[in-house]
Amino acid sequence: MLADYKNKKILITGGLGFLGSNLAIKLVELGAEVELYDSLEKDQGGNLFNIKPIRQQVKITKAKLQNARQLKKAVKDKDIIFNIAGHSSHLDSIKDPWVDVETNIIGQLTLLEACRQANPKVKIVYAGTRAQYGKLQTVPVKEDHPLNPLDIYAVNKISAEQYHFIYQKICDLRVVSLRLNNTYGPRHQMKHTKYGVQNYFIRLALDNEEIKIYGSGEQLRDFNYIDDVIEAFLLTGINPRADSQIYNLGSGAPISLLDFVKKVIELAGSGSFQLVPWSAERKQIEVGDYVADFNKIKQELGWQPQVSLDEGLKMTIDFYKENKKYYWD
Amino acid sequence: MLADYKNKKILITGGLGFLGSNLAIKLVELGAEVELYDSLEKDQGGNLFNIKPIRQQVKITKAKLQNARQLKKAVKDKDIIFNIAGHSSHLDSIKDPWVDVETNIIGQLTLLEACRQANPKVKIVYAGTRAQYGKLQTVPVKEDHPLNPLDIYAVNKISAEQYHFIYQKICDLRVVSLRLNNTYGPRHQMKHTKYGVQNYFIRLALDNEEIKIYGSGEQLRDFNYIDDVIEAFLLTGINPRADSQIYNLGSGAPISLLDFVKKVIELAGSGSFQLVPWSAERKQIEVGDYVADFNKIKQELGWQPQVSLDEGLKMTIDFYKENKKYYWD
Repeated sequence: MLADYKNKKILITGGLGFLGSNLAIKLVELGAEVELYDSLEKDQGGNLFNIKPIRQQVKITKAKLQNARQLKKAVKDKDIIFNIAGHSSHLDSIKDPWVDVETNIIGQLTLLEACRQANPKVKIVYAGTRAQYGKLQTVPVKEDHPLNPLDIYAVNKISAEQYHFIYQKICDLRVVSLRLNNTYGPRHQMKHTKYGVQNYFIRLALDNEEIKIYGSGEQLRDFNYIDDVIEAFLLTGINPRADSQIYNLGSGAPISLLDFVKKVIELAGSGSFQLVPWSAERKQIEVGDYVADFNKIKQELGWQPQVSLDEGLKMTIDFYKENKKYYWD
Repeated sequence: MLADYKNKKILITGGLGFLGSNLAIKLVELGAEVELYDSLEKDQGGNLFNIKPIRQQVKITKAKLQNARQLKKAVKDKDIIFNIAGHSSHLDSIKDPWVDVETNIIGQLTLLEACRQANPKVKIVYAGTRAQYGKLQTVPVKEDHPLNPLDIYAVNKISAEQYHFIYQKICDLRVVSLRLNNTYGPRHQMKHTKYGVQNYFIRLALDNEEIKIYGSGEQLRDFNYIDDVIEAFLLTGINPRADSQIYNLGSGAPISLLDFVKKVIELAGSGSFQLVPWSAERKQIEVGDYVADFNKIKQELGWQPQVSLDEGLKMTIDFYKENKKYYWD
């Protein structure tokens, strides 16, 4: 089925970031025509090095998601839009909600309005997040679990997902939402911990520094290697069966944050860790155990993770050892 | 308990509208110091005639909810904020989402930020809506029913409610949300049907015009008379037991839209009705039967509706007969 991507016209918002660039590389391999839309904002995930292998084979549009004129040009004539752009800092969103609202509400609506006007039947795959569930009432979490967001970012991610499904009705968009869990792997930004700690921990280990874990580190997390997540984007993008659906991703092998950190240190061959008390602001947004039930996407689309945590971490560590200078000083 | 409102400092956003003005009149009776904050935007619910009985006893601030400077002044030193302001047109919100986002997202966040900065422990009663539930999966609907919004307005009302509860954690706000059903009574705007049809139907009957009902009119609705709704605001505002809670209101006597219209025509002594086919845009946002389970507020706060539909409609019709010229031409 992925062969159908050949000559497909694809737009990726957030195309120079972690998910976007890895997806773009795969799409170029599959013969798609790819445009990457990215603001390249400071401290965001966009990084031109991410697309070094395909630099000459993709079109890049540097613009904000709130830029209606640029977006309308970008969405026009596309077959599929992978809508990945967004701020994704829990803490920033409660310190200053406006930045989050700008991208994750205004930006997302600008995209949907651009589609309504310039490409009302396009397929969109929206990058949702496990944060939409908040603290879990039942583990593992299914897609119909109540949404109890703990921060402004999570509220806005829910809204944007709901906007998509409303625009699906208003025009004839075909929409899928993938609610992503913790994803790790090559091409993540490594400058700060705001977009999830798992990748930053790898940096700390490689720099032989101390990893601070809040609390006991016993909360379960469900990590997916980037290639598995990209596979899910590709499957949901091309398969009409996915239209109108929401899918969780998951690993099938949840692990405590503490054990994850120990594994990172072991595989990196450097680094150490220390348990430290929760900061008040981190505690406020901590969700406790997160384990996803991904049976829906497994049964409907045949997706399941292929890369074990050990394998994935080894590939990730190798990548950053080799390319460290492009990701941090 | 309502005696505790004496000398309390109260802010009502949307204070010149339907809910706001009726609430203000009651609060002034109870001896509260009331400030009304309203944009008085054209086609919105604000109407200075609404507060004629208390014009000299309240402070009015004419400003938009997005006006951070004015809001900060307004929230300062208040004991309770009744946060009622908002656009509430389902159809407008999907025709042009920006107007809705301006008030119901940006405006609401501006209010919460103002509280964080100038009055972080204030109590806020948020006016939510039945629209947050969308099409009901179980009838009657309890507060933990999934939220399946059908339009941008409903998405934004959910977001704003969730923002409130997040700010409750960030600072020490005390927050209650009332999810209102269809409310009718004196002081509603009567110029258009965008904010619910029930009041506009009364205008049509009084003008001896034909009321158009989409479809068969068999969908159930749950109407509350304004005084009962105001009582719920007053109880939740003053009772600490309501803090952090979400409450449905309801009538206990659901009625089909068709029977409601027949009753309006009968009590008005004029008007007629016709069943017409659904318009595509109305059909898209129609939720079907809506019946609320309001046992939670009944058990926890002792609220229940006191005014029957017949009594309420009679009072409403009398009011508009007498004051028609202040509401429509």
